[in-house]
Amino acid sequence: MVLETLNDSARTTALADEAHALMALLYPICRSITGDGVRQTLDHVNTIAPLRRTEVPSGTPVFDWTVPREWNIRDAYIADAAGQRLVDFKQHSLHVVSYSTPVRERMSRQALEPHLHSLPDRPHAIPYRTAYYRETWGFCLSQQARDALGEGPFDVCIDSSLQDGHLSIGECLIPGQSGDEAVVYTHTCHPALANDNLSGIALAAVLARELATCKPRLTWRFVFGPGTIGSLTWLSRNEGRLGHVRAGLVMGLLGDSGPLNYKHSRRGGTLIDRAAALAMRDHGGHELPFEPYGYDERQFCSPGFDLPFGRLTRSPNATFAQYHNSDDNLDFVGKPALAGALQALGSVVQAVDGNQRFINLSPKGEPQLGKRGLYGNVGGTGPGAFEHGLLWLLNQSDGRHDLINIAQRSGLPFETLARGAAALQTAALLAPAPATAGGHETKAGGLT
Amino acid sequence: MVLETLNDSARTTALADEAHALMALLYPICRSITGDGVRQTLDHVNTIAPLRRTEVPSGTPVFDWTVPREWNIRDAYIADAAGQRLVDFKQHSLHVVSYSTPVRERMSRQALEPHLHSLPDRPHAIPYRTAYYRETWGFCLSQQARDALGEGPFDVCIDSSLQDGHLSIGECLIPGQSGDEAVVYTHTCHPALANDNLSGIALAAVLARELATCKPRLTWRFVFGPGTIGSLTWLSRNEGRLGHVRAGLVMGLLGDSGPLNYKHSRRGGTLIDRAAALAMRDHGGHELPFEPYGYDERQFCSPGFDLPFGRLTRSPNATFAQYHNSDDNLDFVGKPALAGALQALGSVVQAVDGNQRFINLSPKGEPQLGKRGLYGNVGGTGPGAFEHGLLWLLNQSDGRHDLINIAQRSGLPFETLARGAAALQTAALLAPAPATAGGHETKAGGLT
Amino acid sequence: MVLETLNDSARTTALADEAHALMALLYPICRSITGDGVRQTLDHVNTIAPLRRTEVPSGTPVFDWTVPREWNIRDAYIADAAGQRLVDFKQHSLHVVSYSTPVRERMSRQALEPHLHSLPDRPHAIPYRTAYYRETWGFCLSQQARDALGEGPFDVCIDSSLQDGHLSIGECLIPGQSGDEAVVYTHTCHPALANDNLSGIALAAVLARELATCKPRLTWRFVFGPGTIGSLTWLSRNEGRLGHVRAGLVMGLLGDSGPLNYKHSRRGGTLIDRAAALAMRDHGGHELPFEPYGYDERQFCSPGFDLPFGRLTRSPNATFAQYHNSDDNLDFVGKPALAGALQALGSVVQAVDGNQRFINLSPKGEPQLGKRGLYGNVGGTGPGAFEHGLLWLLNQSDGRHDLINIAQRSGLPFETLARGAAALQTAALLAPAPATAGGHETKAGGLT
Repeated sequence: MVLETLNDSARTTALADEAHALMALLYPICRSITGDGVRQTLDHVNTIAPLRRTEVPSGTPVFDWTVPREWNIRDAYIADAAGQRLVDFKQHSLHVVSYSTPVRERMSRQALEPHLHSLPDRPHAIPYRTAYYRETWGFCLSQQARDALGEGPFDVCIDSSLQDGHLSIGECLIPGQSGDEAVVYTHTCHPALANDNLSGIALAAVLARELATCKPRLTWRFVFGPGTIGSLTWLSRNEGRLGHVRAGLVMGLLGDSGPLNYKHSRRGGTLIDRAAALAMRDHGGHELPFEPYGYDERQFCSPGFDLPFGRLTRSPNATFAQYHNSDDNLDFVGKPALAGALQALGSVVQAVDGNQRFINLSPKGEPQLGKRGLYGNVGGTGPGAFEHGLLWLLNQSDGRHDLINIAQRSGLPFETLARGAAALQTAALLAPAPATAGGHETKAGGLT
Repeated sequence: MVLETLNDSARTTALADEAHALMALLYPICRSITGDGVRQTLDHVNTIAPLRRTEVPSGTPVFDWTVPREWNIRDAYIADAAGQRLVDFKQHSLHVVSYSTPVRERMSRQALEPHLHSLPDRPHAIPYRTAYYRETWGFCLSQQARDALGEGPFDVCIDSSLQDGHLSIGECLIPGQSGDEAVVYTHTCHPALANDNLSGIALAAVLARELATCKPRLTWRFVFGPGTIGSLTWLSRNEGRLGHVRAGLVMGLLGDSGPLNYKHSRRGGTLIDRAAALAMRDHGGHELPFEPYGYDERQFCSPGFDLPFGRLTRSPNATFAQYHNSDDNLDFVGKPALAGALQALGSVVQAVDGNQRFINLSPKGEPQLGKRGLYGNVGGTGPGAFEHGLLWLLNQSDGRHDLINIAQRSGLPFETLARGAAALQTAALLAPAPATAGGHETKAGGLT
Repeated sequence: MVLETLNDSARTTALADEAHALMALLYPICRSITGDGVRQTLDHVNTIAPLRRTEVPSGTPVFDWTVPREWNIRDAYIADAAGQRLVDFKQHSLHVVSYSTPVRERMSRQALEPHLHSLPDRPHAIPYRTAYYRETWGFCLSQQARDALGEGPFDVCIDSSLQDGHLSIGECLIPGQSGDEAVVYTHTCHPALANDNLSGIALAAVLARELATCKPRLTWRFVFGPGTIGSLTWLSRNEGRLGHVRAGLVMGLLGDSGPLNYKHSRRGGTLIDRAAALAMRDHGGHELPFEPYGYDERQFCSPGFDLPFGRLTRSPNATFAQYHNSDDNLDFVGKPALAGALQALGSVVQAVDGNQRFINLSPKGEPQLGKRGLYGNVGGTGPGAFEHGLLWLLNQSDGRHDLINIAQRSGLPFETLARGAAALQTAALLAPAPATAGGHETKAGGLT
C-alpha cells in the first residue's frame, strides 16, 4: 500500500530530522516571488526530490495578472552618519520590504519615517512586508530598534534590482499507474520565515521522495512555486491538463505546535476532502470550512477552475503571534510537529491514492468467513477490528460505497479496511466495482 | 440601497417614538374583527402610510368561511341595584367578550356567572375573550373584581349590534421596479392590547412609509386586516395575483422585552426565510420551525396556497404572562424594543428586496484587485471586512450563489456584500446573473 | 386502531407476567441452533401463539452456508476418580460448549485444560461458548470451579450426538387486509440465558397473540429461529416473497434494566426506522446507527437483500456484564422492563401498521373547525393537543406527508394524530392520499 512507511514513527522521526536540516539550509536565503533566492531554494529541494524547473519570462500575461519583473537584492542598510549600520539586511532578510526599488540617499528621520514598518505590540520582532505590485521601498525593523534610531541624518541604501527576468517554479513528477493526477502545491516566496513556509517546502520534498519509492495509482505532481502569481502561472501553463486532476492539496505552515487544520475545497465532499477528513479524525486534526482567503487554494478554487483542492496547515495564517514576523524562526518549528504532519500527510496520500469501491461477490447473507479462516472459530465472543472491518466491507460493498465511506461510517482506519479488502479479494469474496461516471468523488448514500 | 436608513440608530429611535405615539392614539379604540373601531384604526394608520381601503360585505363566502355580520358596541356594564357600574366597558374595552350579542337584563349572580371570565392565576388582570362565530355574550373582569361582585341582583347591559355590514382591510401599496411582489401582513382585530398588536400596526405603518421613500425592486404591499378572516378574505380577493408573491411576512408582537423570533415558512428555505435567518443572526434573534398554529401565517401557509410567508415577533403568542390580558398595555411596550425590531425589519426588507446573483467576469484565479484600487497595496497584513467581502463575492459568483448565500457562508452582513457587489460591478468584475427558473429561492450548493 | 391495548399499563403488566412465566418454563431447556431443545421451546411458544413449523434437513445448502447436522445432548460431566461430578451439564446447560462432539475418556488435568473455558474477570460465572462449525468439544465452568478442579485424573463424558436431522423454525402468521407484509424475527438458539434471548421469544409470543386479536392492515409474520443460520434459512425459503416485506424487526434482549435501543436498518429512513424512532422518542429509548455486527439483522440487511429491517433491544450484545454468561438468568430480567418493552413494541407496530398519507379536502386556508364542533367555541385561549393535531394534519396533508412525518414534526404521539385523522375523515375534511410508487417509505420534504 502506498506510503504505509509513514505509519512508522521511527521513519517519520528520521524524516522530520532531515526536513529540519533542509529548513536550516534554506533559512538564510532571501526569497521573494522571483529572483535568485527562489532558484537557490529549488536547488536545495532538488537534492531530495528531483525537480523539473520552469522559468517564465517577466511580462508574460497570466489571466488577469502579469509575471512581474525579477527582483534581486545584494545589500541594504540604514546607517548613521558614522557609517554604522543600524538596520542591516545582511543580518536578517526580513529587514527589507520585499520588491523594494533601489535607493541610495542621505535622509532625515522625518523623510525616512514613512518607509519604516514595525510592530508596536510585539516590540522585539521584525515584521514581514511586501510591495510586489507597486513601486516603493521600505525597511522592517523591531519597534525597539525603531525607537533607538535617533534623528539622523541616515545613509539609506537598498542595492536591489527590478529587471526583466523570470519567475521560477519547480515540479517533482511521480508517475502513476493511471492517467489521473494529484497535485500538491507549496509556496516558496517567503524569506526567513521558518514555519511559513520552509516547513511546507521541506515536508513536500521528503514526502515526494517517499512517494516515489511506491507505485502510486495516481500520477502525483509536487509543485514548488511562489504564492498567488506562482499558482496562477502553473494553472495557466497546465490548463489543458486540469481535467485529469482528481485531487489537490496546498500544504504549508506545518511545523508549529498547533493542531492540524484541514480546510475543505470550494466544492466540498471531493476525494481530497473526504481523505483529509478521515486523516483529521485519526490524527486529532480539525476541519475548516472553505473560505476564499488563505493560500494558493484561492487560485485553484476560483470559480473558473473550481478544482478539488484542499489545504493542510497546522495554525493557519494570522492565527499565531509569530505569524509574518521574525519570531517565525527555526526554533519556532518543532521536529515532533513535522513528524506528526508527515504521518497525517501519509494518511491523506494513502486514502487519495488507494480509495476504491468494491462489489461483494456473495451478497446474500454473510458469507461464512470461518470456513475460510477469516473469522475466529470458537463463537460466543466478539470480533476484533480486522474482523469488524471484514463485516463492514462485505455489507457496504454494493458498488456505491468506497473505502473512505466505509472508514467514516465504521470508525475504522482506512488502512485496516484496505488490508481487509485485500484479504477478501484473495478469498474471492470481493471484486473491484466497475468505474462509474462519478468516479472517485461519489458522495455515497447512507450516513456518510 | 433599500432601507439603509434603518441601520441608523438615531433614525430608528425617532421612528420608534413615532410608533409609540401612534399606539397611544389607538389603544383606547375598541377593535374587533369588524366594526367602526377597525375603521378608526385604519384612519390613524392612513396619516402615516396611505391606505387603499376595502370593505367586504357580510355574508361574502371566503373559502370555507363567511364574512360575519359587523359588530359594533356603544356601551356595556354590570351595575348593582343602586346603578353603580361594577364592570364598565367605557373603562376598558377588554371588559366585553368580543362579538357579544346585545343584552339588557336584571340578573342574579347565579344567572350571570356563566357569562363571566377571569384569571384566577393573575387576579388583577382582565382577560381577553372572543365569541366571533357563536351567538353568546359575556364579560371579562379581574378575579379581584369578580370576587367583590356580591350576589346581585345586577343590571346587565351590552349595547351592541350584530348586523350586516362590512369587513375592513387597509393596504399600503409601494410600487417596485419589477412585477414581483412582497406582502407584509399585520392583524388589526385586537382591542386594548398594546403589544398584541398595536406594536405590529404601528411598526408596519412607519416601515411602509420609510420604504416608500426608496425605489424598491419588488412591489411591496402592507396589509392591515383582522386575524384569520382578514387574511382569508385578502387571499380570496387576490388569488389571481399570488403567483407574483416572492416573499411574505406576518409581523406583530414586536414591543415586548423578549428577543426577536422568526418563524419559518411551511416550505422552508424560501427568500424570506433566508433573509430573516440572516437578520436574526445579525440582530440576536432566534429562528423557530414552522408550525400550523400561530397568526395569519396559518392561512398563507395552508397547503392550498403554501406561500413563502414567515412571521416575525418578539415573544410569540402564549409565551408571556401579559398575553391576552390587560397587562399587555402601553407600559408593557418599550421604545428600544420597537427600535430594535425596526432595525431587524430593515435588514429583512433589504435582503428580500436586494438579493441577487452575480457572475464573476474574471473567474480564472483571483483578479488583481490591487491594480484597481480595491485592495491594500502593502502586503503582509490581512484584508478587512470589505476586502474579505470582495473575495467572497468573486469566489462565489458563478451564478448559483446569491448575496444571502454569501452572507451566510462568509459571516458578513448582507449590507457589506451589497456594497462590495456594487464596487465590483463598477470595476467590471461582476455582472448580474441571468434569471433562472429557480429565481430568488434557489437553495444553492456548498455549505449554505 | 391496531394494538392500542398496549397503551394500557394494566394490560402490559399482565402480559409481562405471562411472558416471565413462559421464560421460566423455557430456561431449563438446552437449546442450540438445532435439536430437540429448540423443538420443545417452539412447543411452549405454540401454546401462546400458534406456530407453523418448518423442519429443514441437514445438508441443505443455504446461500454460502449449509444446514448443519442436528446436535442433541443427554448428559455431560467432568467427574473425579471417586465418580463425583465436578462439572455437571444437568445442573446448568451452559456447562457444555454448544455442538460439542461426544467424548468419554479418562484424562489428566493437562489434557483436559485446552477444553476448559472460564472467565477470570468474573470468577463466579459460567461463560457461554459455541463451536457450531468445527468439530471439537469443551466445558464451560466458573473460574472458581476451575481453580478447585485439582489435577485429576478426570472421567470426562459428553453424551451428545451430531447426526443428520433438521433445523427447526416456527412462524406465527397473522393475516392482514393487504398483501404487504411485516416480519418480526427473534433468535431461539441460546441455552439458559434469560435476557438473551428468552425475553425476545416470550415477548414475541405475547405480542403476536395480541396482534392477532386486531385486524392489522399488513400481514405480520413472527419468526422464531436460530441466529444466523435460522435467518439465512428463512430468507432462502422465502426469497420470492421478500418484495412484499414493507418492514421488519429483529427483537431480543428486552428484559434487562437498560434503556431501549433501536438500531436502524442498513438503508435508513424506512418505515420501520421512522416508526421506531418515534417510539424511542415517546418511550425514552435511543437510536443506534446501522452497523453490520449484531443479531439477525446482519442477514436481512446484507447487500444482496438490503431489507428494511431494524432491531430493538434494551442493552445490546456485549454491553452488559451478564452478557453470554450464567448471570444472564431469570433474576436478571425484570417484569417492568418486559412491560415497558411491550409498550414500545406496541407503538412500533401501531405506527408501522397504521401509517398513512392524507389529502386535505379544504386546503385553501384553514377550514372552520368550530362550526363542525372540532374546535373550542370561545376564543382567546389556545388549542389542546388534539386540536393542535387537527391543525397539523390539515396543514401537512398534501399527499406528501404521512402520519409518522407529522408526528415527528409536531412532537405529538402517533396515536393522537391517528385519532385526529379519523375525526377529520368523518368531517369530510381529509381523505386517504392515492398510493404512489414511494409507498410507505417516502422521506417527505420539510424539516422531517
